[in-house]
Amino acid sequence: MAMYAQEHNGRMSAAEQLLAVEEIKKVFAGRLRCMDTKDWERYASFHTDDVVSDSWNSPGAARPAEDSESAVSTARGGPVVGGAALTAAIRATLDGDVPVTSVHHGHTPEITLTSETTAVGVWAMEDRLWFTRGSETEWLHGYGFYHEEYRKVAGRWLISYRRLERLSVDATPGFYTR
Amino acid sequence: MAMYAQEHNGRMSAAEQLLAVEEIKKVFAGRLRCMDTKDWERYASFHTDDVVSDSWNSPGAARPAEDSESAVSTARGGPVVGGAALTAAIRATLDGDVPVTSVHHGHTPEITLTSETTAVGVWAMEDRLWFTRGSETEWLHGYGFYHEEYRKVAGRWLISYRRLERLSVDATPGFYTR
Amino acid sequence: MAMYAQEHNGRMSAAEQLLAVEEIKKVFAGRLRCMDTKDWERYASFHTDDVVSDSWNSPGAARPAEDSESAVSTARGGPVVGGAALTAAIRATLDGDVPVTSVHHGHTPEITLTSETTAVGVWAMEDRLWFTRGSETEWLHGYGFYHEEYRKVAGRWLISYRRLERLSVDATPGFYTR
Repeated sequence: MAMYAQEHNGRMSAAEQLLAVEEIKKVFAGRLRCMDTKDWERYASFHTDDVVSDSWNSPGAARPAEDSESAVSTARGGPVVGGAALTAAIRATLDGDVPVTSVHHGHTPEITLTSETTAVGVWAMEDRLWFTRGSETEWLHGYGFYHEEYRKVAGRWLISYRRLERLSVDATPGFYTR
Repeated sequence: MAMYAQEHNGRMSAAEQLLAVEEIKKVFAGRLRCMDTKDWERYASFHTDDVVSDSWNSPGAARPAEDSESAVSTARGGPVVGGAALTAAIRATLDGDVPVTSVHHGHTPEITLTSETTAVGVWAMEDRLWFTRGSETEWLHGYGFYHEEYRKVAGRWLISYRRLERLSVDATPGFYTR
Repeated sequence: MAMYAQEHNGRMSAAEQLLAVEEIKKVFAGRLRCMDTKDWERYASFHTDDVVSDSWNSPGAARPAEDSESAVSTARGGPVVGGAALTAAIRATLDGDVPVTSVHHGHTPEITLTSETTAVGVWAMEDRLWFTRGSETEWLHGYGFYHEEYRKVAGRWLISYRRLERLSVDATPGFYTR
């Protein structure tokens, strides 16, 4: 069966594998929902302590505000490491001095278990962000794929890695000069 | 496992829980599809007789037409109660004197079984509606979350409650003055 | 249970049925992803040799370029038959002389097993295509439903039929005159 790595056959029942996949889908869903509803305490809880997020440096990805905190400086050039730093970076981007309305949608997951406690997944995604500056609305609208890794820690599936591959992104010129 | 309430452990097998979740996802899917294809007889069949739908009074939600039937008057101020009233209200909004083209998409379900016959779920959503008035197109475009409850009745999962939480909604000024 | 045809009861366990449904969802997901990332070798591999795709002749569907190869001529008037012809037709449309950026998203699958090796499915869909001509951007933006059939061949679920039902489609006038 295509859901798990061949060498792993027989260690988890079909039902156990399917439960793991469903739990991973819910973790992904909860992460996006907490981002868009700005529930930052729960947001951090979906990630491992050592999570690596490489979703900042793709061309056209939403960049953190110019004047935000140290976690964000880390983010600018490359991956963000650690659940607290990641949450701080996202929070500064979406919920800092300039509140940003955001919608992140994920589609058609391809989840593959690589062991009883590890998995990889790819999700199609679309994101929209808006903020206002005076009477003007600045916006970003993008499409792509999240490439993620998951790890089961203390009985709970968490996101341990994320990379954003962009298909297309469009934004107002002023979006990045917040 | 995170899929069901802790006190319920052991009453349903993992496979039974996963089947219930999959059936609930199909009920949700069928409801949206029947709304957008305007199959009103099937639309009602996805809901319990006592369904409560609180998806009308959120700011910017699509409001029923001014001149439509009694079910819709009920809807204007608050929740709609009952499968027949709900279907009449949606039908008046989308398929009344002014035909409205609609697209409702649901994403990344978070379904949790609360007993063998009850469940709750949250879905990210996006909706688009268009109608023409003379040579002009009026439209609404929104984003949010459906918060739903489900109940198994005579062996079939049905929607017993729905509330629409909006993240964002935009519309032409004329959209609401149909 | 609503997941499989009544006459099929008892031949597959609940877990086996759910695994089949999950594998079908992954085949659907992989097909869309390979189309948008233009991975044409993998694209063909998601279909049976005798696949029939009837997603070209719906009003407003993206039509193959005027000057493309024979597979596409077949496509113009009606269904495309065969994995190689289908891949050639899609490739000519999206990745020919004029490169087209595309985003295809699928939502809320309704998968029903009709035997141990056959299934049907309906997916809500949205597609966006863009290409540039000189300084102008031509685009198409559509919504609808994929009606598909699946067959298990040599242990792997594949797509054996696809029809695109459109709810709505909009495009620039120049989109079809590439």
